[in-house]
Amino acid sequence: MVSGIYIILVYDISEKRVSKVLKIARKYITWIQNSVLEGEISQASFYKLKEEIKKVINEDEDSVLFYIIRDLKYTNKENLGVIKNSDERFF
Amino acid sequence: MVSGIYIILVYDISEKRVSKVLKIARKYITWIQNSVLEGEISQASFYKLKEEIKKVINEDEDSVLFYIIRDLKYTNKENLGVIKNSDERFF
Repeated sequence: MVSGIYIILVYDISEKRVSKVLKIARKYITWIQNSVLEGEISQASFYKLKEEIKKVINEDEDSVLFYIIRDLKYTNKENLGVIKNSDERFF
Repeated sequence: MVSGIYIILVYDISEKRVSKVLKIARKYITWIQNSVLEGEISQASFYKLKEEIKKVINEDEDSVLFYIIRDLKYTNKENLGVIKNSDERFF
């Protein structure tokens, strides 16, 4: 079992606010490609990440989705085309 | 155990090719928000989906990521802000 949890964050945010959200998210997890970040995170940090994001998004326009994977054993990943973050070394 | 598999498709594709890829992907799974589709799919259909996408993307510029979840029991989902596809009724 992963010690923290593993999250995939996918955002659909107005251009005006994207860089702010990216700056926050990159403190906790790794940028993978446009609109997607991933990484292992503790419950406490996940709570902080959400609170910080809530402060900068417009909840009527923007959407931030979190897929929370409690055990990576049941999930794998495939890629077609270029790998945008080449030092991405997760599952 | 989910009869097929459950996939999350995230794309980072040049504007010129996005609508083609979306048209293909929507035959198999559900649009959730910008850059993201999700849904249950059989292995055979997943193979066809990838083959069709390969034909339209530029593998040197575009990226399509698939997170393949073999058991939804270990994954859940949270949303901040608006839900872009309101009839989205997955896990």
